[in-house]
Amino acid sequence: MAAQTISIDINGERKEVEASQTGVELFSDNKDIIAIRLNGSPRDLYTPLHEGDKVEPIDLDSPDGVAIMRHSATHVMAQAVQEIRPDAKLGIGPAIDNGFYYDFDVKDPFTPADLKEIEKRMKRIIKESQSFRRRVVSEEEARAEEAEQPYKLELIGSKERELSAEAATEVSNEGELTMYDNVDREGRTVWTDLCRGPHLPNTRFIKAFKLERTAAAYWLGDQHNPMLQRIYGTAWPSKDELKAYTARMEEAAKRDHRKLGQEMDLFSFPEEIGPGLAVFHPKGAAIINAMEDYSREMHRKHGYSFVQTPHITKGGLYETSGHLQWYKDGMYPPMHLDEEKDADGNIVKQGFDYYLKPMNCPMHNLIFRSRQRSYRELPLRLFEFGTVYRYEKSGVVHGLTRVRGLTQDDSHIYCTREQMKEELTKLLSFVLGLLKDFGLNDFYLELSTKDPDKFVGSDEIWEEATSTLAEVAKDSGLELVDDPAGAAFYGPKISVQARDAIGRTWQVSTIQLDFNLPERFQLEYIAADGSHQRPVMIHRALFGSIERFFAILLEHYAGAFPAWLAPVQVTGIPVADEFAPHLQAFLDGLADNLVRCEMDSSDDRFGKKIRNASKSKVPFTLIAGEDDVQKNAVSFRFRDGSQLNGIPVDQAKAWILDAIKRRIQVNSADDFAVVSDQAGE
Amino acid sequence: MAAQTISIDINGERKEVEASQTGVELFSDNKDIIAIRLNGSPRDLYTPLHEGDKVEPIDLDSPDGVAIMRHSATHVMAQAVQEIRPDAKLGIGPAIDNGFYYDFDVKDPFTPADLKEIEKRMKRIIKESQSFRRRVVSEEEARAEEAEQPYKLELIGSKERELSAEAATEVSNEGELTMYDNVDREGRTVWTDLCRGPHLPNTRFIKAFKLERTAAAYWLGDQHNPMLQRIYGTAWPSKDELKAYTARMEEAAKRDHRKLGQEMDLFSFPEEIGPGLAVFHPKGAAIINAMEDYSREMHRKHGYSFVQTPHITKGGLYETSGHLQWYKDGMYPPMHLDEEKDADGNIVKQGFDYYLKPMNCPMHNLIFRSRQRSYRELPLRLFEFGTVYRYEKSGVVHGLTRVRGLTQDDSHIYCTREQMKEELTKLLSFVLGLLKDFGLNDFYLELSTKDPDKFVGSDEIWEEATSTLAEVAKDSGLELVDDPAGAAFYGPKISVQARDAIGRTWQVSTIQLDFNLPERFQLEYIAADGSHQRPVMIHRALFGSIERFFAILLEHYAGAFPAWLAPVQVTGIPVADEFAPHLQAFLDGLADNLVRCEMDSSDDRFGKKIRNASKSKVPFTLIAGEDDVQKNAVSFRFRDGSQLNGIPVDQAKAWILDAIKRRIQVNSADDFAVVSDQAGE
Repeated sequence: MAAQTISIDINGERKEVEASQTGVELFSDNKDIIAIRLNGSPRDLYTPLHEGDKVEPIDLDSPDGVAIMRHSATHVMAQAVQEIRPDAKLGIGPAIDNGFYYDFDVKDPFTPADLKEIEKRMKRIIKESQSFRRRVVSEEEARAEEAEQPYKLELIGSKERELSAEAATEVSNEGELTMYDNVDREGRTVWTDLCRGPHLPNTRFIKAFKLERTAAAYWLGDQHNPMLQRIYGTAWPSKDELKAYTARMEEAAKRDHRKLGQEMDLFSFPEEIGPGLAVFHPKGAAIINAMEDYSREMHRKHGYSFVQTPHITKGGLYETSGHLQWYKDGMYPPMHLDEEKDADGNIVKQGFDYYLKPMNCPMHNLIFRSRQRSYRELPLRLFEFGTVYRYEKSGVVHGLTRVRGLTQDDSHIYCTREQMKEELTKLLSFVLGLLKDFGLNDFYLELSTKDPDKFVGSDEIWEEATSTLAEVAKDSGLELVDDPAGAAFYGPKISVQARDAIGRTWQVSTIQLDFNLPERFQLEYIAADGSHQRPVMIHRALFGSIERFFAILLEHYAGAFPAWLAPVQVTGIPVADEFAPHLQAFLDGLADNLVRCEMDSSDDRFGKKIRNASKSKVPFTLIAGEDDVQKNAVSFRFRDGSQLNGIPVDQAKAWILDAIKRRIQVNSADDFAVVSDQAGE
Repeated sequence: MAAQTISIDINGERKEVEASQTGVELFSDNKDIIAIRLNGSPRDLYTPLHEGDKVEPIDLDSPDGVAIMRHSATHVMAQAVQEIRPDAKLGIGPAIDNGFYYDFDVKDPFTPADLKEIEKRMKRIIKESQSFRRRVVSEEEARAEEAEQPYKLELIGSKERELSAEAATEVSNEGELTMYDNVDREGRTVWTDLCRGPHLPNTRFIKAFKLERTAAAYWLGDQHNPMLQRIYGTAWPSKDELKAYTARMEEAAKRDHRKLGQEMDLFSFPEEIGPGLAVFHPKGAAIINAMEDYSREMHRKHGYSFVQTPHITKGGLYETSGHLQWYKDGMYPPMHLDEEKDADGNIVKQGFDYYLKPMNCPMHNLIFRSRQRSYRELPLRLFEFGTVYRYEKSGVVHGLTRVRGLTQDDSHIYCTREQMKEELTKLLSFVLGLLKDFGLNDFYLELSTKDPDKFVGSDEIWEEATSTLAEVAKDSGLELVDDPAGAAFYGPKISVQARDAIGRTWQVSTIQLDFNLPERFQLEYIAADGSHQRPVMIHRALFGSIERFFAILLEHYAGAFPAWLAPVQVTGIPVADEFAPHLQAFLDGLADNLVRCEMDSSDDRFGKKIRNASKSKVPFTLIAGEDDVQKNAVSFRFRDGSQLNGIPVDQAKAWILDAIKRRIQVNSADDFAVVSDQAGE
C-alpha cells in the first residue's frame, strides 16, 4: 500500500509529501535548519504536519533561530544548576536580546566560582548532544510532575494572557500544557522542564555561549514576591559572533557614560539626593550649556515661541489630560496643600493634591487656550526646556538613560490640517540637521501606526496623518521601518533611530501626532471663515531628553567631544614656568571669546601634564616653549599625539575659534589642516 | 515757695525745668511737636518728666510723628465704625507703611457706602479736636472695661513678647496696661480703647487722610482664628503729601505688573495649576530669555562654573543643612517614595521622604565636596538658574513678587579668607554693572550685621567679614545704610536696594556670607601647605529671583522695555498691502539676526495698526509706503509718536541691531539720533 500523502505549502510552494514526514526529513539537506515556522508560529523541527499546513524552515542564524537556541541554552543552564544545587527551585528562563537568563530560588547567591562550574557542566551537556522532546500533559499531570517546584505550579495555575512575554515562554500558546524532556543518546530522560518551546533538535546547536553575571530579581518582577537569583548568559550561532559580541561589550563598557561621567568629573548621583536624580558638575554642565545654547539658537531660527511653566500643578490638570487615569504609576505621589482647619481640627477649606509634572503638554495647552487664537497665529510652536519627574522604580534607574528627573527639549505645535504636511517636513529636516550637527550621521525612521483595537479620532484623520507622516519620511530618503499597531492610542508617530560610533541604535527624537488632547482641552482657533476649528497637535522632542542625549553623545564620542561640546576646549601647558605668562596671555584672549580654557599650573612635570591633558580628552592642548615665545606663537598637540609647532598666535586663535564655530571634530594635525585651510579662505 | 526743679536733657542739652513741666510746655513754641521721645521711647507729649530724663521732641513730619498720627487715625476710624456698627468688636489697629488699618468683627462686610459714611464721621471727629488721654489700669479693671470685647480680652491675657509688632501696639511696653480715652472739648470721654500709645495731643493733627479699601483678615493672621473685616486707610501730615501719595498710587496701579502682564500677554496664573505658580506666555518668556541670556554671558565672563541640580531630594540633605529644622514651614510637604511592602503589607524596605527644594545651596555643597578640592581651584563659583519651591500661604501670594515657585540666579562662591575682600569687591561691581545694564541707576546698600544674641562662628570671623563688607561697600561710593543686628545667624549680608522710575525702593541683589553651612557640610580644601582648611562661603543672587526682577522691570519701564528686552522688538506696518513684501523682506533680514519681529497683517486699517503698535509699546514701529519702496528705505515711528522717514534699509538695520546690542532705551527720534550717531562712527 502506497504511503499516504498530504499537500502542504513549503516556503510558498505547494508540495505533496508523505504524511509521516516532518521538518526533520523535509529539510534534511540543510544542517542549519533547527525548527520550523508552522502556519506562522515557531515550532519544533519534528512537529507532525497536516494537510494544508504552511511550513517555513528556521535557520539557526535567523532571528527566530537565535532566539530558540538561546531559550534552549537556558534549559542547559538550569540542568547544570540543578546538578550543583539540587534544591534550586526554577523560576522562568527566557531568551532576551543578546542572550538569556534563568531565575532560581536558591539558599545562597551564586558565586563567580559557581558560574565557572555551571559553564563547565553546560559544555559537557552540550557535548552530550541531548535531544529536546516535547510532551503534552494534563494540568493534573503537570502538577504532579512539578510538585516540588512552587513557581512552576504557580505558572500552571496562571492564565497565559496575564503573564509577561518572558513568563509566557513557560506555558503553552495553544491551550496545551507541555513538558520538554532532555533525552541522552541512550534515550534516557535526564532532565525535564515545564515549557512552551520550541527548542533545538539537540544541545549541540548551542555553538558558542558564555555566562555573564548574576543579579537579584523579584519573582515575576513584582516587589511583593520573593527575591530570586538570576544568571545572565549570552549565546551565538558561531564562536566568531560570540567574539564580536564580547568585543562590542568591552568597547561599550569602556564608553559607559556612567564610568566616563565619573572619570571626567561630569556628573554624579549623590546618595543624599536619591537614585535617578543627576547632579551636573561644572564640566558636565558646560556640555549641557553648549547643547542648550545650540538648541535655543536653532529653535529661534525655526520660528518657535519659548514658554516657561512650573514643575508642579494641582491634580485637576492631569485629570483633564488623562494622565492621572493612565499614567499615575509613573507619577510621584501627591502633596496635599492649602487645606485649612479650624481650632477643633475640622476642615474649613478643602485642599488640593499637587503633583510634580510628568509631562509638559497639559501646561502648553493652557497657554494655547489662555486667549482666543486665530488661524493667522498657526502654526504656533510652543517650546520649553521642560524638566519633568517620573517615578521609576529605584531598581530600574540606569545612569542618565533611565532617570527620575529629566529635561525635555519639548515642543507642542498647533496647526491646521492643511499645514500638517509642511510642518512635519520642516520638523524632520530640523531634527536631522540637529543630529548631524551633533555628529550622528547614520539613522533610520520608524513609523508607528494605528492599533485597530485602541485609538481615538476618526479613521479618516488617522489615515491622512499616517500617510502624511509616511510621505514625509519617504521624502527624507531615509530607511523607513514599519511598526504596525505600535502607535499610542492618540495618534501615529515617527521616531528617529540613530546608530552610534560602535553601531548601537538609540531611539532619539520623536514626532507624535495627537488627536486626543485637543479634544480633552477643547482647543480651538478661529478659521478664516470665522468658524471654530480644532487644531492638530504635534508633540516633539529632538534630543528626547537632554540627560539621555548627553549620555548617548558621551558614549558615541567616548568622551572625546568635538571642541564646541568639550567641557574644556583648550589646556595650556608651558614647557617651563618662564613661558607661562606668554601662554596665559593667549588663553586670556581666548577666554574673552568665551572659549573654555584651563592652564595646567600644577606641580607636575611637563610630561605628566601632557599625559593628563591626553587622558582628559581635551581637543586642543597648547604648548609654549622658548621658540614659541620668541616667535609670538604657540604649539598645538592633538588627541592622537600629533603636533603643529610654532603657529603664530593670531592664526592659532582664528583656527580655534573657527573649529568651535563650525562644530568640527579635530583629533589630529591632519583633521586640523582642514579647519585651517577653510579658515584661511 | 519756689517751684521744685529737675534737671533733664533736651536734645542733648542739660536744662533745669520746673518739675511740673511736660513736653506741652517745653515745646509750646512749636505747634508741630506732637509727642516726645523719652529716654529713647516715643511717649505722649504730656508725659510727666523726672530728674535725669532724656527728652527729644517728635515733629509731626518726622517718621515717628507720622506713625503716631496714623495710629491715632485708627482710633478715630474705630470710633466712627462703632457709631454706625455699635456691635463691631475691635481687633487691632496699627500704623503701617503709608497708612493704617483696623480689624473689626462685624456681621456683614463693609460696603463702599459704609466707607464713605465712616470717612464723613471721621472728619467730624477730627474737627471736634478730641484729646487722647492715657490712663493706667489694672488687669482686672481692663477686663471689666473690655468685657464686651473678646479680642481685647484675649490681648489682655497675652504675653507681649508672643504678639506680632502690630498686635503689640495694643498693650503696654512697660508692663503697664493702659487705656486711651478720647475726650471732647467739654471734657467728656466719648470713646475708649485698650492701647499702648502714644497718641497725638488731639485729633486735629490728622491733617489729611483717606480710607482705601477693605479686606478679610484672620484674627492675628492665624487661619485657625475667626475672619475679621479690615479697613485700610492712609494719612499724611499735609494735604499736599496725601495728594502726592495718591498720584504715586495711581501711577503704581497703572504700572502694576499683574495688570500689564495680562494686557501685554506676558504671563498668567492659571487656576488649573494653582496660586503663585506663574506660566510665562511667549512674550513673557522672550523677556525672561533676554534676561537669562544676558546673565549667562556675564557669568561666563566673570569666571563662574555652571552646574545643574534636581528640584527634589531626600529629606536627609535638608536635615544636614538645617532647613528641615528652621525652614520647614516654608517647604512643601514631603512625598514618600521607595517604600516596599510584602504581600501581607509589612514594610520590607524603608522608604524616604522627598522634598521639593526650597534652596539650592545644599546641592551646590554636595558638588563642592564630590571630590577633594585644592586651594588652586578657589575661588570656585558655582552658578545655576535654580528653580526653588516655597510654600507661601495662598492668601499672601502676590503676582510675580511673592510666588510659590521661583528661579534664582543663584551662586555659591567658595574662597579662602584671604580672597574674601577681592571676591566681594568683584561681586559688588558685577551686581552694580548688571543693575545699570537693566536701567536701574539709583541704589543704596544695606549692611546687616551680627545679632549678638543669635549667631554661629567666632567673633573674630564676624568682625573680619563685616569690616570687609563695610569696606567694600564704602569703596563703591554708594550710600550705606546700617541694619544693626539684622544679619541671619549664619553671617553678615549686604543687600542692594534699587529705586525705580517712580521712586519706590526694591531690595534686589543680596550678598550673604555663611559661616554655618561649611561646618555642617564639613567642606574642606587642601591649602598650599597641605593642611585641610574650611572655605568661606558666599551666597549671592543678583536678580534675586527672575520672576520678581521681571516684575520690577515691568513696573519700572511700565512695559515700555528697551529694545533688547522688549518681547516684540520691531512691528512692521505697510501703508498699503502692496508695500508689504518690501517690508517683509526687511523684517526677514532682521529675523535672521534673531531680532523679534512681527508684521501686522490683520484686516485693521493703517491708523488702527499704528495705534495698536503704540499700545503694545513696541520700541520700533517700521512703516513702508511708496517712497520707502522706491528709495529701498523704511520709516521709523517711535513710542512718543515722532518719526524718521526714508531711512535706507542697510542703515536702518545697522541702527536697530546697534540699539539692541548696546541695550539702549529708545522712545523718540531724538533718543535714536544718539544711537545712529554712534553706530555711524
